[in-house]
Amino acid sequence: MELSDIRSQAKRAGESPGSLVYTGRKKNPTQVTVVNYSAEICNEETSDNPNKIIELIDKPGTNWIQVEGFNNLEILSRIQEHYKIHPLTAEDILTGQRAKLEEFDHYIFVTLKTLRWEKKRKKFAINQISIILGNHFVITFSDAPVDIFKKIEEKMKSNPKQRLREQGADYLFYRLIDAIIDQYFIILETLGELIDDTETLIISSPTRGHMRRLYRMKRETLMLRKSIWPMREAVSHLSQLNDKFISQFTRLYLRDVYDHTMQAIDTIETYRDMLSSMLDVYISSLTNRLNEVMKTLTVISTIFIPITFIASLYGMNFINMPELKWQYGYVTTLGAMGLVVIVMLVYFNKKKWF
Amino acid sequence: MELSDIRSQAKRAGESPGSLVYTGRKKNPTQVTVVNYSAEICNEETSDNPNKIIELIDKPGTNWIQVEGFNNLEILSRIQEHYKIHPLTAEDILTGQRAKLEEFDHYIFVTLKTLRWEKKRKKFAINQISIILGNHFVITFSDAPVDIFKKIEEKMKSNPKQRLREQGADYLFYRLIDAIIDQYFIILETLGELIDDTETLIISSPTRGHMRRLYRMKRETLMLRKSIWPMREAVSHLSQLNDKFISQFTRLYLRDVYDHTMQAIDTIETYRDMLSSMLDVYISSLTNRLNEVMKTLTVISTIFIPITFIASLYGMNFINMPELKWQYGYVTTLGAMGLVVIVMLVYFNKKKWF
Amino acid sequence: MELSDIRSQAKRAGESPGSLVYTGRKKNPTQVTVVNYSAEICNEETSDNPNKIIELIDKPGTNWIQVEGFNNLEILSRIQEHYKIHPLTAEDILTGQRAKLEEFDHYIFVTLKTLRWEKKRKKFAINQISIILGNHFVITFSDAPVDIFKKIEEKMKSNPKQRLREQGADYLFYRLIDAIIDQYFIILETLGELIDDTETLIISSPTRGHMRRLYRMKRETLMLRKSIWPMREAVSHLSQLNDKFISQFTRLYLRDVYDHTMQAIDTIETYRDMLSSMLDVYISSLTNRLNEVMKTLTVISTIFIPITFIASLYGMNFINMPELKWQYGYVTTLGAMGLVVIVMLVYFNKKKWF
Amino acid sequence: MELSDIRSQAKRAGESPGSLVYTGRKKNPTQVTVVNYSAEICNEETSDNPNKIIELIDKPGTNWIQVEGFNNLEILSRIQEHYKIHPLTAEDILTGQRAKLEEFDHYIFVTLKTLRWEKKRKKFAINQISIILGNHFVITFSDAPVDIFKKIEEKMKSNPKQRLREQGADYLFYRLIDAIIDQYFIILETLGELIDDTETLIISSPTRGHMRRLYRMKRETLMLRKSIWPMREAVSHLSQLNDKFISQFTRLYLRDVYDHTMQAIDTIETYRDMLSSMLDVYISSLTNRLNEVMKTLTVISTIFIPITFIASLYGMNFINMPELKWQYGYVTTLGAMGLVVIVMLVYFNKKKWF
Amino acid sequence: MELSDIRSQAKRAGESPGSLVYTGRKKNPTQVTVVNYSAEICNEETSDNPNKIIELIDKPGTNWIQVEGFNNLEILSRIQEHYKIHPLTAEDILTGQRAKLEEFDHYIFVTLKTLRWEKKRKKFAINQISIILGNHFVITFSDAPVDIFKKIEEKMKSNPKQRLREQGADYLFYRLIDAIIDQYFIILETLGELIDDTETLIISSPTRGHMRRLYRMKRETLMLRKSIWPMREAVSHLSQLNDKFISQFTRLYLRDVYDHTMQAIDTIETYRDMLSSMLDVYISSLTNRLNEVMKTLTVISTIFIPITFIASLYGMNFINMPELKWQYGYVTTLGAMGLVVIVMLVYFNKKKWF
Repeated sequence: MELSDIRSQAKRAGESPGSLVYTGRKKNPTQVTVVNYSAEICNEETSDNPNKIIELIDKPGTNWIQVEGFNNLEILSRIQEHYKIHPLTAEDILTGQRAKLEEFDHYIFVTLKTLRWEKKRKKFAINQISIILGNHFVITFSDAPVDIFKKIEEKMKSNPKQRLREQGADYLFYRLIDAIIDQYFIILETLGELIDDTETLIISSPTRGHMRRLYRMKRETLMLRKSIWPMREAVSHLSQLNDKFISQFTRLYLRDVYDHTMQAIDTIETYRDMLSSMLDVYISSLTNRLNEVMKTLTVISTIFIPITFIASLYGMNFINMPELKWQYGYVTTLGAMGLVVIVMLVYFNKKKWF
Repeated sequence: MELSDIRSQAKRAGESPGSLVYTGRKKNPTQVTVVNYSAEICNEETSDNPNKIIELIDKPGTNWIQVEGFNNLEILSRIQEHYKIHPLTAEDILTGQRAKLEEFDHYIFVTLKTLRWEKKRKKFAINQISIILGNHFVITFSDAPVDIFKKIEEKMKSNPKQRLREQGADYLFYRLIDAIIDQYFIILETLGELIDDTETLIISSPTRGHMRRLYRMKRETLMLRKSIWPMREAVSHLSQLNDKFISQFTRLYLRDVYDHTMQAIDTIETYRDMLSSMLDVYISSLTNRLNEVMKTLTVISTIFIPITFIASLYGMNFINMPELKWQYGYVTTLGAMGLVVIVMLVYFNKKKWF
Repeated sequence: MELSDIRSQAKRAGESPGSLVYTGRKKNPTQVTVVNYSAEICNEETSDNPNKIIELIDKPGTNWIQVEGFNNLEILSRIQEHYKIHPLTAEDILTGQRAKLEEFDHYIFVTLKTLRWEKKRKKFAINQISIILGNHFVITFSDAPVDIFKKIEEKMKSNPKQRLREQGADYLFYRLIDAIIDQYFIILETLGELIDDTETLIISSPTRGHMRRLYRMKRETLMLRKSIWPMREAVSHLSQLNDKFISQFTRLYLRDVYDHTMQAIDTIETYRDMLSSMLDVYISSLTNRLNEVMKTLTVISTIFIPITFIASLYGMNFINMPELKWQYGYVTTLGAMGLVVIVMLVYFNKKKWF
Repeated sequence: MELSDIRSQAKRAGESPGSLVYTGRKKNPTQVTVVNYSAEICNEETSDNPNKIIELIDKPGTNWIQVEGFNNLEILSRIQEHYKIHPLTAEDILTGQRAKLEEFDHYIFVTLKTLRWEKKRKKFAINQISIILGNHFVITFSDAPVDIFKKIEEKMKSNPKQRLREQGADYLFYRLIDAIIDQYFIILETLGELIDDTETLIISSPTRGHMRRLYRMKRETLMLRKSIWPMREAVSHLSQLNDKFISQFTRLYLRDVYDHTMQAIDTIETYRDMLSSMLDVYISSLTNRLNEVMKTLTVISTIFIPITFIASLYGMNFINMPELKWQYGYVTTLGAMGLVVIVMLVYFNKKKWF
Repeated sequence: MELSDIRSQAKRAGESPGSLVYTGRKKNPTQVTVVNYSAEICNEETSDNPNKIIELIDKPGTNWIQVEGFNNLEILSRIQEHYKIHPLTAEDILTGQRAKLEEFDHYIFVTLKTLRWEKKRKKFAINQISIILGNHFVITFSDAPVDIFKKIEEKMKSNPKQRLREQGADYLFYRLIDAIIDQYFIILETLGELIDDTETLIISSPTRGHMRRLYRMKRETLMLRKSIWPMREAVSHLSQLNDKFISQFTRLYLRDVYDHTMQAIDTIETYRDMLSSMLDVYISSLTNRLNEVMKTLTVISTIFIPITFIASLYGMNFINMPELKWQYGYVTTLGAMGLVVIVMLVYFNKKKWF
């Protein structure tokens, strides 16, 4: 199970609230990349020197400050100071959180889970990403480089004539959140195909391994669910946010993000139900199989046990056993045995055991 | 499982929001049919030429623009431009969505799932239909021809003296949605009859195939549920819509659509509960059967095992076995065996194993 | 399962909304009975002639128009016209509906399910009753005669000094709804007694038939539930209705109807839970019984199999078997067998298998 | 199951609403006790004479009128008349109801369930108590004497310097309700201890009787739940009641009653969950036991069946069986049998069947 | 099960509400520690003398009054009097309660459950802590010393330059509640690790002990759930509290406490689901194992029973059995037996029983 959030919260227990303590396990060095852009320009600069960072971030146009890795707390505290980030926001960025959205006087803070399917481990990895939206700037925090952010950056650089460059920080903010939600659909597709495959197998010939597979899929679904449910709440606040940060233009887009989240949740709930149904199929087919095994045993036993008894009977060594001396004793006995077998077969046939 | 929506969403991941990309798998060419009607006239024209389409759509009276097939994106973008359709609406039309209703300044957008029972595959197919209602026009989008739309069109042409011709675009809008919901009742009837049949079979003599049937019905019910639940929300908004588009007359009808949706949902939930109960019956009857099999085996075994032992006993070849030489040794032994059998039968009778 | 509502809705699919089409299966001819009453008078007249009906219904005092049977659509359309009943109301009366309440400008429309226990079929029958309350008139629609309405009519005639005569149409309206809800308690009592009986049987000695009985009761409970849940919503609106139709006096009574509905719902939910618990008892007792059967088999087998082996051993015909020639070979062998039996019995006793 | 409420409702079906009909089964004669109290005085008088009762109840100070037993409807109708009690309130007092609270112009009516553990029957008995709070009077109705009311009366008489005497009717009203809720905790304690005991037994050595015990506890929990859930709603209204009857001082106390109800509900829900878990333990341990039994049988069978076959083999009477005449035939055979046994034991050991 | 709350409520039944009666079982003597602090000073004094206590508590700056142990009711009543604590608050402090928050005119009262993992008993202990926040004072009540309070006190003393000293009573109030919630994460981490371990074991090789472990974990999860759910409600009120006691500065922090509570609840619900899934795995693997055992028995039996019958057949002592005298009778019989074995093996192989 994905315990990292609980662990990082447990480790913080006893610390003063709002103090800068990183409780995660990732060892990535802290690096800050600043993308300064507008319809005309788009420059990127990177640094891991706490003293140089402030110089980078206050340029005209919109600034996208990407903070990766949480090991250099000095850099983080510089940024916190410069943008007057509330200590609790700083704490939330560094500790495992459920998805949430908070509105402060001079910025909006949102923290979300992003997912990545790990082919080797056959499970998905969960990462936490925090985003701060202010006037003319967006700051993103993650404890490792984020693929989907890189892609958006590339798109941004590729062409000045696009909404991403023409619109302000709020539209970038929307695009980042949208990209995170879109990740869920990729995971859901993978999971959906896995469920489809397993379904076919379980219905035709269930084996022990399928149970484990079912269990693992259920666990992954539970984890997905735990990540996305709080997201719903956070995202539903998005479209009701203060006008200060979100333009009328972007607001419509944020409403769309909510719809996507709901679609993902609907799908997860349907997966859960399907996995339960598949478990029922699995268990009933186990019992079915047990029935079949027992029928085989019972048929063989009830046919042979009585005739073996007859054979044993005439294997007794009593001196005075008249049947033994009869001319047709043996043949009669064989006939009697045959009769027993036929009676039994008729009985089983009637009970539809074949 | 019906994964198409998730797949089309996953494919879009990374695309700019609002860009015209069709991610479905249907290969139908795009065709536009415009029905221009009023109480007096009702003309229909069809075209697949992007340049001609705009000429068709701006005539006096009410226009019903039916767009079928999403492969010619040029046509779609012309229509989008002409009616000033928001890019997100365009995206929603082309990508798999959960049912939703959105109100824009100059139109109402609704997207719903329509169902069709496919006799051959013994499951129903789900299609997405989007409808835009503006002043004096209704645009419908689907990636394949829609039977129920054709039927409404025929009815419209058949007789000028009917509400469908006398009322405006909002009443047509209502009729289309009403027809989609009505489809659900046809599916529910089919499913309900299947459940009724299976119920009778499972109670009288459950077989392995019934489990699979139960499972398939449950899966279909889950899919139905996933399609219709979001519909409820969308439809409940219908009767609270802005006066700009919906007349007082039509509003009453839209309230009725909501009642029908609730009736369908109630029925689906009842089906789910019934299928669960039937599963319980099935599993308990499996265990019952196992019990019966085991009882047969046990009765036969416990009757014959002891008397076979007695027979084996006197089959031993010890020189000094006085019983063997007794005059009535054999008869006594037979008597003893008979006694064992009677005792056993009495015991089983008492336990009510017969 | 009670599919009639879904069937009647499915049959309507494609029809114009609000058109008068009866999709039920009952073949009762249409008959209209009008009770014209006030504190002073109370007259009843019956007719099945469309032309005569209008004459009957517009008299001073309060009119209770009872319409039974839906096969003469002409009569229905006359009434519809005369009272300006909305086409959708007319459709709702003729098609299977979930319980609902709708307020129109000049009347209140309510449709409810009424139940009747059918002793022979050992299930209850569900009927739909629609009631329209206007100024000084109540119209009731049903596709078959309704016992409880007859009883209220008799009471009305019996004595002029009662609230039913002194109060207006709204009080009659309340009395009719109250009588319908009261039917549920009679069904619930019957069902509750059945559950009580089955409970005692299942705990003492469950048989296969009990499972079927459990299943049937569960199904009936599900049907009850489906009928009554939407009723709750409809009835809760009753006490918030417009002052135009409901007097302050009657309002208090309608609040009471809601309480009764809630009581019925609570009881149904408790029944559901009890039936689930009884299923658990049933299944666990099946497994228990299997255990018992298997123990019997195992005890008999493990006692006799080893000693039968010993007997078989000395039944071998080897020439050189010294034990066979010993004086006390036989006795020793019997002793050894006895020892085996005792060891086994001690073992089983320790395991508490007896 | 506790069917009395449903039965009394079913019996009323057809009666005019608000008519005084007692449908319970208790035969207690009606008796009225009036306690007239203030900070200074506290007098009690009892009567079962309808004509004398009105004299007792209208004295200065606060009057607590205790009505016990519902068989003398004349007394009840006198009280109803005197206090202008609404006919529906009178009906609710006499018929089995779910807990509810209703506000009328000149009084507040509350009906609740009280519980009493019956040691002999090992279940609790449910009684209905109705309380009417007016200006300067409280009327309590019950169909049998109520222990907890007697205790409050004694406390009231014992000492004039207590809130119960100093505060008015509203505080007495609170104290009565509080005492009823407190009863639930006593029942919950008893039930909790029963669950604790059963838990220990089921984990160590489950027997068939435990299943029945589990079932009974579940049923009692369901009954408790059915009694207390509607209470929550009623009690939550208490603290929002009209100022006319409830002083600011008492309001705080009524808030506390709600907290207690919620605590009882939480506990009942936890019991339900625990009983479900215990059922799982029970059923899994049944299967475990079956496994154990089957293993014993299988081990014994698979060891002895092959060697018994070998013994039977050399018990055959063919003339030409060379092994029989070998010098060491017997010993070799015994050795072969020993080998088979060892192989089997090793196999079972590997499978961890011991 | 943790019955203490219900027990203490049951014991109170019959007592006057608001009377000072301690119904817990802890025997700790009452001790009061007062920490008087501000940005400049921080003094601590302890006493168990009722007469001295009032002197300690009314000093300038903020006072944190820690009351430990409830056996000296005189001390408690002195404090109650001095701070004008409502009798019901006093009762709530002394009796087992579900978490709640109540606002009074001159103070805020909150009662919460704190958890502590007890390594020896392998379960966690639940304690009740009550906190009163007034102007410039915080009073904490517990029936035993509380570790986390001691830690906060130490931190407070360690350094005057920290928010804890600079901010007023409301910030201390927040810190205490925050510390209590943080305890849950420590418990959840421990429980999460236990679940992880058990999961691995159950999937690879389930034993009987695992069922008990599963059950115990489920019970603990239920207890956790019962403690934390009401906390959610109480904590959600925190951020909506009256401005009188909570500054704008602290309000933001209290919002954070709510997020943590929700995170803990999410985790508990996920644990519950995981434990259910693990139970399914366990039960299905039991049935799987039974299947395996039965297959072994059936294979051995069906192979040996028929050939043993053949052997018995030729062990019969009939005089006239021609086969016995044939030259190759024995060899032919052996061959026939071999054939039976091969047929059986082929059959089992086809059924995939190996």
